[in-house]
Amino acid sequence: DLPFALFAGPCAMESRDHALFMAERIKAITDKLGIQFIYKTSFDKANRTSASSARGVGLEDALPVFEAVKDAFGVPVLTDIHLPEQCAMVGEVVDVLQIPAFLSRQTDLLVAAAKTGRVIKIKKGQFLAPWDMKNVAQKVIDAGNSNILLTERGASFGYNTLVSDFRGLPTMARDTGLPIIFDATHSVQQPGGQGETSGGQREMVPTLSRAAIAVGVAGIFAETHNDPASAPSDGPNMIPLDLLETYLRELQDIDRIAKGRKNLHFFSE
Amino acid sequence: DLPFALFAGPCAMESRDHALFMAERIKAITDKLGIQFIYKTSFDKANRTSASSARGVGLEDALPVFEAVKDAFGVPVLTDIHLPEQCAMVGEVVDVLQIPAFLSRQTDLLVAAAKTGRVIKIKKGQFLAPWDMKNVAQKVIDAGNSNILLTERGASFGYNTLVSDFRGLPTMARDTGLPIIFDATHSVQQPGGQGETSGGQREMVPTLSRAAIAVGVAGIFAETHNDPASAPSDGPNMIPLDLLETYLRELQDIDRIAKGRKNLHFFSE
Amino acid sequence: DLPFALFAGPCAMESRDHALFMAERIKAITDKLGIQFIYKTSFDKANRTSASSARGVGLEDALPVFEAVKDAFGVPVLTDIHLPEQCAMVGEVVDVLQIPAFLSRQTDLLVAAAKTGRVIKIKKGQFLAPWDMKNVAQKVIDAGNSNILLTERGASFGYNTLVSDFRGLPTMARDTGLPIIFDATHSVQQPGGQGETSGGQREMVPTLSRAAIAVGVAGIFAETHNDPASAPSDGPNMIPLDLLETYLRELQDIDRIAKGRKNLHFFSE
Amino acid sequence: DLPFALFAGPCAMESRDHALFMAERIKAITDKLGIQFIYKTSFDKANRTSASSARGVGLEDALPVFEAVKDAFGVPVLTDIHLPEQCAMVGEVVDVLQIPAFLSRQTDLLVAAAKTGRVIKIKKGQFLAPWDMKNVAQKVIDAGNSNILLTERGASFGYNTLVSDFRGLPTMARDTGLPIIFDATHSVQQPGGQGETSGGQREMVPTLSRAAIAVGVAGIFAETHNDPASAPSDGPNMIPLDLLETYLRELQDIDRIAKGRKNLHFFSE
Repeated sequence: DLPFALFAGPCAMESRDHALFMAERIKAITDKLGIQFIYKTSFDKANRTSASSARGVGLEDALPVFEAVKDAFGVPVLTDIHLPEQCAMVGEVVDVLQIPAFLSRQTDLLVAAAKTGRVIKIKKGQFLAPWDMKNVAQKVIDAGNSNILLTERGASFGYNTLVSDFRGLPTMARDTGLPIIFDATHSVQQPGGQGETSGGQREMVPTLSRAAIAVGVAGIFAETHNDPASAPSDGPNMIPLDLLETYLRELQDIDRIAKGRKNLHFFSE
Repeated sequence: DLPFALFAGPCAMESRDHALFMAERIKAITDKLGIQFIYKTSFDKANRTSASSARGVGLEDALPVFEAVKDAFGVPVLTDIHLPEQCAMVGEVVDVLQIPAFLSRQTDLLVAAAKTGRVIKIKKGQFLAPWDMKNVAQKVIDAGNSNILLTERGASFGYNTLVSDFRGLPTMARDTGLPIIFDATHSVQQPGGQGETSGGQREMVPTLSRAAIAVGVAGIFAETHNDPASAPSDGPNMIPLDLLETYLRELQDIDRIAKGRKNLHFFSE
Repeated sequence: DLPFALFAGPCAMESRDHALFMAERIKAITDKLGIQFIYKTSFDKANRTSASSARGVGLEDALPVFEAVKDAFGVPVLTDIHLPEQCAMVGEVVDVLQIPAFLSRQTDLLVAAAKTGRVIKIKKGQFLAPWDMKNVAQKVIDAGNSNILLTERGASFGYNTLVSDFRGLPTMARDTGLPIIFDATHSVQQPGGQGETSGGQREMVPTLSRAAIAVGVAGIFAETHNDPASAPSDGPNMIPLDLLETYLRELQDIDRIAKGRKNLHFFSE
Repeated sequence: DLPFALFAGPCAMESRDHALFMAERIKAITDKLGIQFIYKTSFDKANRTSASSARGVGLEDALPVFEAVKDAFGVPVLTDIHLPEQCAMVGEVVDVLQIPAFLSRQTDLLVAAAKTGRVIKIKKGQFLAPWDMKNVAQKVIDAGNSNILLTERGASFGYNTLVSDFRGLPTMARDTGLPIIFDATHSVQQPGGQGETSGGQREMVPTLSRAAIAVGVAGIFAETHNDPASAPSDGPNMIPLDLLETYLRELQDIDRIAKGRKNLHFFSE
């Protein structure tokens, strides 16, 4: 029942300078607030709505930047991987390998990630039930790695809409014993909702984050940017960097209450 | 931004003695905690899963009991109405008339309830979007009554399952300016999920309640019973009376944080 | 395995003249095609999206018109009822009493309708599973009436959208042994989807109708109008009257195939 | 508007002998009925519910078997690919490369498949809307390949359940101009519904197939097995081989009607 950790950064790596700038700024905020911080960014957006959308800097250019962030600020780094063959190389540098939600049932990817020995953060597929994640996690455990984080990022609800089912958080925790992370910014995505790109409801990020923290989570995943409107991806749902501190302070207050009490259990028996 | 009020009581009225017993017990707890309390119970279960399920004591027997509860403990009382013709008679005694979720689009019922001048508490239909409630509330306002409470009680999610979409709370508040209540026990129903009766996930009541309080609500609606297993309806989701105080204390702590802060708004513009 | 019957007419009764005009025109078409025809229209729209929407001519003015339609053309008539007290009076004239989807769990309405001895056509609630309809039908049977038709009209699928689950047709037939009707025009509604009114996808009516007929149904329910754009309700989903014959011919061809064969059953056992 | 083609075979390749046996048997039936036949089987089940589930014979052992089937019976063959690196090798032998539903947004896989010049059959993700498939297909077209088939296989509907939205078939056809295939056996899956494996409702295969054919499709995809109960995967939803001919005959009759008529269009505007 530690205070929540923060997995944050811009959706996509844009440049070495921007990555260092973002990591420094977020680190300053989380140090001030006493929050454990893991820097998150993607080197490739492998499943964009449209092929004409930007992809990212690529794995080879990204790894030295991840190293620079680690060296400069002493923060662990997280990135998502899309193919089994990427895992070993990414695992040499990156501390947390994230399995994208669409790929959460791909056995080979889960196993290759597991074999790096790094922490494996698995996003629950939008098409999966909370209780389906036990089998997903087991694929990683069977490959010899029990350092797993499970992430809620919304379930399909009709077309082009996700819904966050907060019953899923304690369900996954109970079924697996693993730490649960709430992805606050992808949960408000409207996939495909703007024709050739995904829309988002940024104004709902604090609402859903407060709910998740009150339910009880080990961490919050939130994409943030100094200028969301000009970001290459996920602009409609990222948190503006200048609001990050206020956002986190509010969550900390709720987190202290949530972690300070035993959860009430009304068993249905 | 007042502290949350509690609408609570057994799902169905069982007897005068049981009603007075329940009201007294809940009143003692809410007085101790400083929570505004409205006694809730139904005189008729008009839409049971099966015709062989128990219905209730009926309107004529119930009204004197509501009066007795008011007299004995000075608490306002709430009940749900099902037909326009019931409204005037119920409105002579009962302080809050509740429109059931299935009936939330029935214009004549909304208008007849409105005309009593009492507070009208409308449950959002499981088949409605949060933004649909503006039109529903307007039917009551057009009938001359603006004392309205809106209630979230879950949206249809596949078959025999509801999901609580917490984006709906601020959406309804923003669209209507009305107080929003979270129905903590019906939101965990599994309608029709046990063949001839509805099932429920009582163990999820505290989880969803904490989420709602953290998001920010004017009140919590929660059915409670001294012996849920023997209750004539909704046993699988009611809160055992002896856990009510602990449940409420936890919510109060979160409520103080949620109400003490301005909500962060990240406008998508 | 009779050929499909047609329940058709304008969504709302507009006037005696319009009712007679519509009944005559539809009767001419169905006579030509050899289709059993039941004239459908509503005397009241009791659950409009907005209170400012038109309601209808009302029960007292409607009953003589229903009689006139029956006298003039010898066709049975159907209307929907909303309150138990309406049933006896409507049942004196109207051959088929329809229970609206939102009201499909209201025990008193089902019982009062049952007691008329008329045919009771029950629309499956958007919030119900196909297997939930067994309990609904049982309420009518327990009240002494086994002349029941069940109707599929779409299930809630996210917000403001319905989906037609064609597995529900054989499921309801198997569970109850009752004839199943497919409501072709309400199934394409987009409830609340146009702010103060419901939208609709009229272009999908033939698609879903063909699917339903191929699966096998006892009847098609379809609202039609000589000028949908000027109709007081449901304009976006009604079938233009001048396309009705072509629409029906196509369905007849499929119906002959569907009814001519035994359904294949691959039991999962 | 050609008669529907059949993509069929056992879910997973079991052995050279079994593949040749199945291809011969299905070929005999489709020759008799005059149906175009494409043999389908998987060399790897890359996203099983559980890691302990069987995977398959693997790419290297499978390719000679695909060649043998083509040589022996002159039928085109289809298999699904999971990684970009598999595409070139598979494309040397296999006529139709299928993109799994979970992977339908993975740009690199779509592009690598496209570059083989083979027919690319894309399954619509359970998390996508019909109109999202235009962008998916465009990724293949932009990579220089317009030989694309789109496949409906169900959309997420609550947990562990899919629903077939038949509006999606004409929507995808209209948006892309591409042939639409209905996957009759995966559409009845209950993903994760049996704990460590997926369940299925085989008895619904004919129901949904008839609906799809009546709506109008270019082909049916259906897994079949001489002994489903002993198949290594998807047993609960495969068609028993000895029922295949009856199943297809029924669909042919409906197909003739559906293809013989122009679709009625009731435009909403």
